[in-house]
Amino acid sequence: MRVMGLDPGLRAMGWGVIDVSGSRLSHVANGICKTTNGDLGGRLVSLFEQLSEIWTVYAPDTAAVEQTFVNKDGAGTLKLGQARGIAMLVPALSGIVVGEYAPNAVKKAVVGVGHADKRQVEHMVKMQLPGVVIAGPDAADALAIAICHAHLAATAARMQRAVG
Amino acid sequence: MRVMGLDPGLRAMGWGVIDVSGSRLSHVANGICKTTNGDLGGRLVSLFEQLSEIWTVYAPDTAAVEQTFVNKDGAGTLKLGQARGIAMLVPALSGIVVGEYAPNAVKKAVVGVGHADKRQVEHMVKMQLPGVVIAGPDAADALAIAICHAHLAATAARMQRAVG
Repeated sequence: MRVMGLDPGLRAMGWGVIDVSGSRLSHVANGICKTTNGDLGGRLVSLFEQLSEIWTVYAPDTAAVEQTFVNKDGAGTLKLGQARGIAMLVPALSGIVVGEYAPNAVKKAVVGVGHADKRQVEHMVKMQLPGVVIAGPDAADALAIAICHAHLAATAARMQRAVG
Repeated sequence: MRVMGLDPGLRAMGWGVIDVSGSRLSHVANGICKTTNGDLGGRLVSLFEQLSEIWTVYAPDTAAVEQTFVNKDGAGTLKLGQARGIAMLVPALSGIVVGEYAPNAVKKAVVGVGHADKRQVEHMVKMQLPGVVIAGPDAADALAIAICHAHLAATAARMQRAVG
């Protein structure tokens, strides 16, 4: 199973793709879609086109997006929401139900505790994906989201087997 | 010139299309794209597909989206942002720079004052678009945004002529 994780942002959208085979994870690719200042519509189109191309190239079977919101600042939250709309739209256009995980759930799945800092997350991502070269902090977060989704999807499948 | 106005929302996205010829406005169509509860990605895809179809049918030359944010509630603002991302994306995919207007600017352009209530806005929309049948409050807001964009685009064109 191929999993894409997405860490949404208008300026920088991190993405990471991993392959899952049983309990074995392996790195496929990661990177950051960037947009520069300009009209908002044009930036959203740029994110949509960059992400659509990555989606086509790596053809994931499933995807998950971080469930963040900025509490302190309405305008910032709205911007993030707009970028997040694109991050959800691209996988969902393939008919996939996109996973959503709160940052603490991602940290718990990857590091084991909900309040790990960024360096710990990056360290554990590197441990679980030997040989990975990470494009930047947003890409590390995206890979962590993909790992979280892989773990939880595997757990859900085991529970399904136990029940059914 | 054909103008589309959009009042974004995840549950209900109002849209309105008008034709502008000099200072004369006429109604073309209006409606509301709706989504029901379900996974967020699927709702965004539904909005994207509904709006893309309307865009293709009416083929506007320009578009504008209301610039709202909900201050009180981060989760609500994020939801709105995601829907707004789709509202911006669809026109921008045609290479259009999408206009953005704060609610008070829209009311000022349509009613003459920035703090008009919804009934006043709807009344003035009906006055300016004789014979219009409005699909609901979100569609009324969308038509008001289109009227605002038409007025301000006309003013910008006049200024351009005066300068150049």
